[in-house]
Amino acid sequence: MPKKIRVVQFGVGPIGALIVRLMRQKSSLEIVAAIDNDPSKAGRDLGEIVGASDAPWGIMIVPEIAVALDGPTDVVVHTTSSYLPHVMAELLACLNGGCCVVSTCEELAYPFRKYPELAAKLDAAAKEEGVALVGTGVNPGFVMDKLVLTLSAAVQRVDWARATRIVDAAKRRLPLQQKIGAGMAPDAFREQAAAGRIKHHGLPESVAMVADALGFRLDEISETIEPVLADEPIKTEFLEVARGQVAGVHQIARGTSAGQEKVFMELEMYVGAKQPSDTIELRGEPNLSLTIPGGTHGDLATAAIAVNTISAILAAPAGLRTVRDLPLVYLPSVPIS
Amino acid sequence: MPKKIRVVQFGVGPIGALIVRLMRQKSSLEIVAAIDNDPSKAGRDLGEIVGASDAPWGIMIVPEIAVALDGPTDVVVHTTSSYLPHVMAELLACLNGGCCVVSTCEELAYPFRKYPELAAKLDAAAKEEGVALVGTGVNPGFVMDKLVLTLSAAVQRVDWARATRIVDAAKRRLPLQQKIGAGMAPDAFREQAAAGRIKHHGLPESVAMVADALGFRLDEISETIEPVLADEPIKTEFLEVARGQVAGVHQIARGTSAGQEKVFMELEMYVGAKQPSDTIELRGEPNLSLTIPGGTHGDLATAAIAVNTISAILAAPAGLRTVRDLPLVYLPSVPIS
Repeated sequence: MPKKIRVVQFGVGPIGALIVRLMRQKSSLEIVAAIDNDPSKAGRDLGEIVGASDAPWGIMIVPEIAVALDGPTDVVVHTTSSYLPHVMAELLACLNGGCCVVSTCEELAYPFRKYPELAAKLDAAAKEEGVALVGTGVNPGFVMDKLVLTLSAAVQRVDWARATRIVDAAKRRLPLQQKIGAGMAPDAFREQAAAGRIKHHGLPESVAMVADALGFRLDEISETIEPVLADEPIKTEFLEVARGQVAGVHQIARGTSAGQEKVFMELEMYVGAKQPSDTIELRGEPNLSLTIPGGTHGDLATAAIAVNTISAILAAPAGLRTVRDLPLVYLPSVPIS
Repeated sequence: MPKKIRVVQFGVGPIGALIVRLMRQKSSLEIVAAIDNDPSKAGRDLGEIVGASDAPWGIMIVPEIAVALDGPTDVVVHTTSSYLPHVMAELLACLNGGCCVVSTCEELAYPFRKYPELAAKLDAAAKEEGVALVGTGVNPGFVMDKLVLTLSAAVQRVDWARATRIVDAAKRRLPLQQKIGAGMAPDAFREQAAAGRIKHHGLPESVAMVADALGFRLDEISETIEPVLADEPIKTEFLEVARGQVAGVHQIARGTSAGQEKVFMELEMYVGAKQPSDTIELRGEPNLSLTIPGGTHGDLATAAIAVNTISAILAAPAGLRTVRDLPLVYLPSVPIS
């Protein structure tokens, strides 16, 4: 029987919990430790915190990275924050502990444009230890970049690329509905959006990754965020949105080269979205497009992609990687002999 | 300026010609030689044979592999036959010459089930020389395997996978229309199909690759081929099909485990197909599907995928690889600095 991959889960929030439950179904993986500094979680059993029916698992959540990485570990799955500067110390601690890292930090997905120095620091630390790290998830990580680039390989020449993701947030968890401003007055939304408190992260990262891969030399990546207003009252499991109130966000990121749009990424995430879907469109020779009817489920897919990236990051050359460099495949629930 | 990748084209048929023309648009590539033993091509200029407007290129097509590989070469793009046993000597000569190989040989895409000994021989020869090889194209190589596996990474658990490809052969070249039996009487088709002379190759290879990657332990891969009969007269640029005559093929390959179907791959390729498309469907947790409206253009995509695989095969670990192991990305027309 092949040796199991030893994984530490770093961050046991909603996505971390989904990842942990999924990893327990993959018999090639063994969860050896979990880190979370939330006082309501630290010191408790991981299985209990993630609501597993077979809890307790005998894996205690600890607040300190060093304690968690004390035993032999192959890879850390990291799910704590969207902001790269916030997680630098965490990522460096994992790398310095000799572990590969798969992180859902959106800004890690393609940090070379916004944070070139942080990217260089992570790359150097990873190479020093002979390990690799990558930022991924459904978006960035899949719909607006990996899938775009995979499709582009079937095309002779790409002149322009678009990805549009329409998500019905009514089916998502409460923190996400709140994060997109559902139920707010339009003015309050605009104030929060201007302060950067309402926003799905990662669109500019996807624009930059796609542009670099397709050979577009962008001068600028611009980003807009607008509220989607409810044209009828909407009630979700968690909240109500009156007519005229905010149902969610409409975000656009554009990459331009010499004044010409080359990459267009659009996210509509709001409660009551009628026709959720993911669509990719490439214009060139020939044109080619792709649709995922209903769209990729955000939370389930992010957890799946993080877990399914584990074997690829372990096989990758040392350094800071992106989903562009890694083959993305399913990790079977039974070990392959 | 980065050093160009030196490529030898092996086989200058219709697909080889498309590949050669595309490679000339990629400034990171340099075609250094071309091989074809067709007496009408050998000794003539490659640019002229592929109908390039800027011919002659000063690249003579030669019939002998050894002559073509005499100069420094990084990779051979190989497009001569669908049958692995037929091309073993060609592939081994390229590997022994120290070159990576990207081949459109369908049986090379996943040879481990049908030709385990040939696969082991190629793997050993590649490792001996420190180079890698892969079989790819639109199908096998993309629609029914790479795209299925990429999508599967966004899913928590896959129980069953399907890919259906519907191609309107009226828009394809004459040899392809003939290869699928267009214009034949049904009896003649069945005779030719039974003799293995009418067939699109590669479905069982895709079934095996997908099943192995998804952890399905197949007992059997079965394959059927039936004619699609024209329900009205059809006229293409090249031929006519009367009502009741054969318009093309309907092929199905199934992978079963303990009597249960786990993978279903279906190809309908006939002149006059009304709604060409590629569709992938995964059943599991959650279900997820994907559609390419109009479908991926067979010849253009095969050429694009072969060319776009060049950088991945050069970066791959030595040995026999499959598209499952390789990230698939676009090779820009301008070198990335």
